[in-house]
Amino acid sequence: MRLYNMHNSGNCYKVRLTAHQLGLPLDIVNVDVLAQETRTGTFLAKNPNGRVPLLETDDGRFLPESNAILFYLGENTPLVPEDAFERAQMLQWMFFEQYSHEPYIAVARFWLSIKPGGRDEISESQLAAWHERGHQALGVMEKHLMYTDFFAANRYTLADIALYAYTHAAGDGGFDLAPYEAVRAWLARVEAQPRHITMKA
Amino acid sequence: MRLYNMHNSGNCYKVRLTAHQLGLPLDIVNVDVLAQETRTGTFLAKNPNGRVPLLETDDGRFLPESNAILFYLGENTPLVPEDAFERAQMLQWMFFEQYSHEPYIAVARFWLSIKPGGRDEISESQLAAWHERGHQALGVMEKHLMYTDFFAANRYTLADIALYAYTHAAGDGGFDLAPYEAVRAWLARVEAQPRHITMKA
Repeated sequence: MRLYNMHNSGNCYKVRLTAHQLGLPLDIVNVDVLAQETRTGTFLAKNPNGRVPLLETDDGRFLPESNAILFYLGENTPLVPEDAFERAQMLQWMFFEQYSHEPYIAVARFWLSIKPGGRDEISESQLAAWHERGHQALGVMEKHLMYTDFFAANRYTLADIALYAYTHAAGDGGFDLAPYEAVRAWLARVEAQPRHITMKA
Repeated sequence: MRLYNMHNSGNCYKVRLTAHQLGLPLDIVNVDVLAQETRTGTFLAKNPNGRVPLLETDDGRFLPESNAILFYLGENTPLVPEDAFERAQMLQWMFFEQYSHEPYIAVARFWLSIKPGGRDEISESQLAAWHERGHQALGVMEKHLMYTDFFAANRYTLADIALYAYTHAAGDGGFDLAPYEAVRAWLARVEAQPRHITMKA
């Protein structure tokens, strides 16, 4: 399988981490989002929504959306719970990640640490709004992790991979994780999983 | 099962429509989001993220996130494809809905048509930004529907329900669907499905 990838994108990292932990080799094609390479006609023919990650299967089908790719790779492996309710809880946290977490924590990181000169293009009030909503998401995670070691099924699943990707890099967006003791302990548990790789790997 | 519900929320409507089409009875508990009833201690104990829809199972477990609830209700029914890749494509469009569609199309509708006086609380530039991103999402849908009748597996699935909920009500947020011919034909196909119910039902 082939992954259209931007290396410092947390959404792409999720896919690399999942594939590595499952022992699935990926042919990596790097795409420069900052140079608008996801907006070319060639790329848009593969993903009309113009984003990475994008998975290409061996028979030439395309699958975008990081968490849908995770589900595709992880189904029927230990990374997805067998129980229907627990499987839905895993998806619950993956939808939470895309709706309540990524748009603030990943977006703040993009403008502060990924896009050159990005900090000068955003207002103080915009950054403050991202920080407020991002801290709300971290607060919800902290509350949950005070009672359980992982997000779903009481074990390491795709939900942990999805939430780890941008949470562990939240500092790049100006988030201080010091107050989130349970979140920090969970980050360490994720990093201690067999075959963990870093975003840079 | 019990559904904590706000009747004019598209996210809640998705769940009512899915349950009705599957013949699953739901005990509906209406929650007034505008009166902050999702922010009380009692409600936050059920869903720390303070949102509806929220599903309560017969044995007292809670499941938030509309699209995770849809997956829980729909798994192993005709609303979810049996093929692994098609199931992932269904999820792809459900993640697209929550990331690229709902935050613009549903949010514009909320401020223009749901929250009393909401129009006066938002700026022209904020509304224009929602309209720009919302039209991008509608454009991606239009392009896809020019080649296929439904979003995944070439048949009616949870992805259609998830995207129908706010697309059919996009006019409430100031979106004109006239230019989206394929989208309008798809809306009619969704409405022609057996046991379809409207948001008001």
